[in-house]
Amino acid sequence: MELGEQASIFTEKHRMLYYECDRTGRATLATLIDIAVLASQDQSDALGLTTDFVQSHGVGWVVTQYAMDITRMPHLDETVTIAVRGSAYNPYFAFREFWIRDENDQELAYITSIWVTMSQTTRKIVKLDEELVTPYHSEAVKRIPRLPRPISFETTDATISKPYQVRFFDIDPNRHVNNAHYFDWLLDTLPADFLLQHDLLHVDVRYENEVQYGHTVTSSVNVLPGEQADQVITSHRIAVGDDKCCEVTIKWQTLATPHD
Amino acid sequence: MELGEQASIFTEKHRMLYYECDRTGRATLATLIDIAVLASQDQSDALGLTTDFVQSHGVGWVVTQYAMDITRMPHLDETVTIAVRGSAYNPYFAFREFWIRDENDQELAYITSIWVTMSQTTRKIVKLDEELVTPYHSEAVKRIPRLPRPISFETTDATISKPYQVRFFDIDPNRHVNNAHYFDWLLDTLPADFLLQHDLLHVDVRYENEVQYGHTVTSSVNVLPGEQADQVITSHRIAVGDDKCCEVTIKWQTLATPHD
Repeated sequence: MELGEQASIFTEKHRMLYYECDRTGRATLATLIDIAVLASQDQSDALGLTTDFVQSHGVGWVVTQYAMDITRMPHLDETVTIAVRGSAYNPYFAFREFWIRDENDQELAYITSIWVTMSQTTRKIVKLDEELVTPYHSEAVKRIPRLPRPISFETTDATISKPYQVRFFDIDPNRHVNNAHYFDWLLDTLPADFLLQHDLLHVDVRYENEVQYGHTVTSSVNVLPGEQADQVITSHRIAVGDDKCCEVTIKWQTLATPHD
Repeated sequence: MELGEQASIFTEKHRMLYYECDRTGRATLATLIDIAVLASQDQSDALGLTTDFVQSHGVGWVVTQYAMDITRMPHLDETVTIAVRGSAYNPYFAFREFWIRDENDQELAYITSIWVTMSQTTRKIVKLDEELVTPYHSEAVKRIPRLPRPISFETTDATISKPYQVRFFDIDPNRHVNNAHYFDWLLDTLPADFLLQHDLLHVDVRYENEVQYGHTVTSSVNVLPGEQADQVITSHRIAVGDDKCCEVTIKWQTLATPHD
């Protein structure tokens, strides 16, 4: 049996709204993560694993890594189906998978992720409470899959950096900065011409330290050669002062004809 | 007959998602405008008045003013009904109304707005093309209602200002900065403590000049006494350098117990 095959799958539909898409009509990466996390919250609620229930155990779920394969970004007014599964867990880490599909059941994106529970008092990672994972019919395993580690970011003369102030409205009802907003900071640092001439292929994300309301983060990026002539790699870091908050590596498809 | 009573009403539902709400679980003002405009776009599309059709007339719709009465902001996971009506027009201005209601048909917000058509080549306001308004069954009138003009903003020693850089993802598929994003800049300038201790009652908005990608806007606010002891007024301006982009006046309810 494949890992996580026994786990319950939850699905829901979402129409991509104009305010979730960029000027080219492609859904933003922030929205892709927003709707994936929405589906996982809806699954959790449906299983009685509400935020309140999780908090009553003295913890909160925190994502530490994402690895995303993107076949095609959803576009404006398209209705997609999001499927989510809490596939497996070991004593400290939970492995969750997401599939985003179009109306013809073609895969648009496949996202894997690693989650931990953090103590609300100490803000430290604590052992997973079985009560918080068994309702997903997650598979108890010794080792969960390792997600690719983003390239270790190095500042060079060619690094592009921009500051972003964390806003009041970046904090969502979960009381933390919605970490999908990191993607707006990460990608906005790239020139508009770059964003128009490239489509996302793969994204590896590793979160390290949480950013807080009022912080000014620095989003930095290096543009690197890809494995193929028509691909480019970007290596990103979000930092607050000297503290690294996350590192991201993105593989892009260079388009023969840029988006308009 | 009341003004606009003959006009077609279009309604749709929307569930308030976690990424559309602030840390208190209240929908953001930006989202309130996003879903109102979404309903008006869906009405336009249903009547064959698509963006492409409008553009084929050499123009685009631009909002110049909003006046919003807010009884209660929608909250997380609430499903609201948005109703929209292109109520009336005169040779240059169209008057559009929106109602946001809860599941018990109680009014949450009532929004009036003034729209013009702008030439895509000259960027100047042009006479309304009847073809673009008659499908709404809008009432042809000599004078449309005048919306309240926001307080003329004056910088004082107590003015709070913050800079915001217009991002790539602020531009939506209509190719302009989504002007609902102005509300994030407008309100984020207020201290978090203020935002937790006040609820919105009324908002008057007047747009003057469009902001562009790459601009750094300055969002400024003065906090003024309200008409009643438990109310406060804020006067806002968004500017790019010396160019005023919009002015806003907001009436707030001071809460005896702040949001958490």
